[in-house]
Amino acid sequence: MTVFPSAVQAPPSAPEILDRCRELVRPALTEAVGRLHPWVAEMAAYSFGWCEVGGAPAAAPGGKGVRQALAVLGARAAGADGRAGVPAAVAVELVHAFSLLHDDIMDGDTTRRRRPAVWKAYGTGPAVLAGDALFALAVETLAAAPGGPAAVRLLSTALADLVRGQADDLLFAARPFDGPEGVTPEEYRAMAEHKTGALLGCAAALGATLGGAPEPVVAALDRAGRHLGVAFQLVDDVLGIWGDPAVTGKPVGGDLRERKKTFPVLAALGSPAARHLPALLDRPEEAAALIEEAGGRTAALTEARAHTAAARSLLTEVPPATADELLRLLDFLMARDL
Amino acid sequence: MTVFPSAVQAPPSAPEILDRCRELVRPALTEAVGRLHPWVAEMAAYSFGWCEVGGAPAAAPGGKGVRQALAVLGARAAGADGRAGVPAAVAVELVHAFSLLHDDIMDGDTTRRRRPAVWKAYGTGPAVLAGDALFALAVETLAAAPGGPAAVRLLSTALADLVRGQADDLLFAARPFDGPEGVTPEEYRAMAEHKTGALLGCAAALGATLGGAPEPVVAALDRAGRHLGVAFQLVDDVLGIWGDPAVTGKPVGGDLRERKKTFPVLAALGSPAARHLPALLDRPEEAAALIEEAGGRTAALTEARAHTAAARSLLTEVPPATADELLRLLDFLMARDL
Repeated sequence: MTVFPSAVQAPPSAPEILDRCRELVRPALTEAVGRLHPWVAEMAAYSFGWCEVGGAPAAAPGGKGVRQALAVLGARAAGADGRAGVPAAVAVELVHAFSLLHDDIMDGDTTRRRRPAVWKAYGTGPAVLAGDALFALAVETLAAAPGGPAAVRLLSTALADLVRGQADDLLFAARPFDGPEGVTPEEYRAMAEHKTGALLGCAAALGATLGGAPEPVVAALDRAGRHLGVAFQLVDDVLGIWGDPAVTGKPVGGDLRERKKTFPVLAALGSPAARHLPALLDRPEEAAALIEEAGGRTAALTEARAHTAAARSLLTEVPPATADELLRLLDFLMARDL
Repeated sequence: MTVFPSAVQAPPSAPEILDRCRELVRPALTEAVGRLHPWVAEMAAYSFGWCEVGGAPAAAPGGKGVRQALAVLGARAAGADGRAGVPAAVAVELVHAFSLLHDDIMDGDTTRRRRPAVWKAYGTGPAVLAGDALFALAVETLAAAPGGPAAVRLLSTALADLVRGQADDLLFAARPFDGPEGVTPEEYRAMAEHKTGALLGCAAALGATLGGAPEPVVAALDRAGRHLGVAFQLVDDVLGIWGDPAVTGKPVGGDLRERKKTFPVLAALGSPAARHLPALLDRPEEAAALIEEAGGRTAALTEARAHTAAARSLLTEVPPATADELLRLLDFLMARDL
């Protein structure tokens, strides 16, 4: 009853877990994308890094495949073979791709994984269409899987949360940093849970549902994934200010210059020391020092650790062998160069 | 077991059927939209004609509500109360609204029902988001309804067809009228079935499913709706060339000037008399005369009649009282000023 029959007894590392899950899921994902209209299928394949514009095969970097791995491990957490989670894995990877395509349009982001974003490469209208097609395909894939209505309900909740988080994120840009209309750290946390956590939680919960897990295990995995999402977003924010641009791929101080409402900034604004911070954001080095001095960095990392701990404690609901793999994945995702 | 208990014995007219179905569905549709993020809910309400930009109440023209009526009548065709079809009606109206929002972006259409399109009124990014939210809400609504996986499967098939039809429609614009790469009348028919027919068929089939209809009735209603969609699109094409602009709300010769691949044009090109037609499209009056002379108008209307007849014959699967209401609706939709 393991996904990865192997003579080797050493437990797989997180990158190995990700690789094996990707291999397990890839045929079904390829088959699903192949059912799309050929033009739309090309845009989808481009977004996964499988081809260039025009359709020539490529091996561009796709995502890490965290969501598909969570779905496979979710099925194993239910005591099932990882294969039972494959339709869930396909659905969540399709939803993730859909959300990247549409978010890049909304956010005006022109590149994604060091290539032109789909809307830059194919046009806005076609990218809207391709996103819609991936969304529809995700629902179709899950509706056709045994596991039925409960699975579709989980996915539709995550989709609604995803859209809600993106709406808040877009609206944050138009709101001030402080004052009565200011974005609060609590609003930020809710946005991050919806925008990033909901689909991670859904991935694991869906896998568990298809694997036949009892409701408490499904709910625990869903909540663990949501905590993981918030923690991940917080670490992302810290890296966006203090990370090495060569590693993050983001320009130094970009988030600050764009006046993004990130957690370290919002938390720093709770301290009187930081009251001039909003006026300083065009000078990222000074701003970063002030945020650190005002406790913004520490607050973000403390909050991230609290969410990681919450995710960990929820994994006590899961059989030890699978919990162990999930924890290794969690540690891997959190252990970026801070 | 009727939706509309009434002391009046005369059968309702098509506009009455549409009005009553709209009244029956409206509370559930309003409740569903109210569950959205407030900003997104406003865009959705604007698109339904319920409010102005900013949220002030309005009574702008919404759609005719054909899809919701088909869902309600679908439930009655199953021998159930029309109320059983309400979740289906809500889902298909949400999907229809989603597709209009995104299609207007893709097609660059700046007005919709004589008001600015959502993307013109709120921006492209927000309109993409609002469409996504309506899509997610449709799936959520149906997944929560009793009737479950079969209903979600029907909807996801229609969604996939919708996207496929829109992809073909967008690609037709870049293809020539004739020659080996030319769009064929058969490709046109498939596009219209996917883009317009799939959701009409799905509406009736979903209502029937929620009403507990046997599979052959569900399938017959689905196919009838698809034929209705093709017929409707053909009549639309004829009106786009020969209709009264005061009635259609479209500029005279607009479809011709935009070089749209409409059925009358494609059919006319089958005749040698029309070989210079593509060069003539900038002179809509001459082009319209040539298309008529080459048999394009007659071909479109003959084809529309064939699809209407096919839809009618499928309704023999449905109990007579409901079939009668469906036929009245069909006649009403087809009897536009030709």
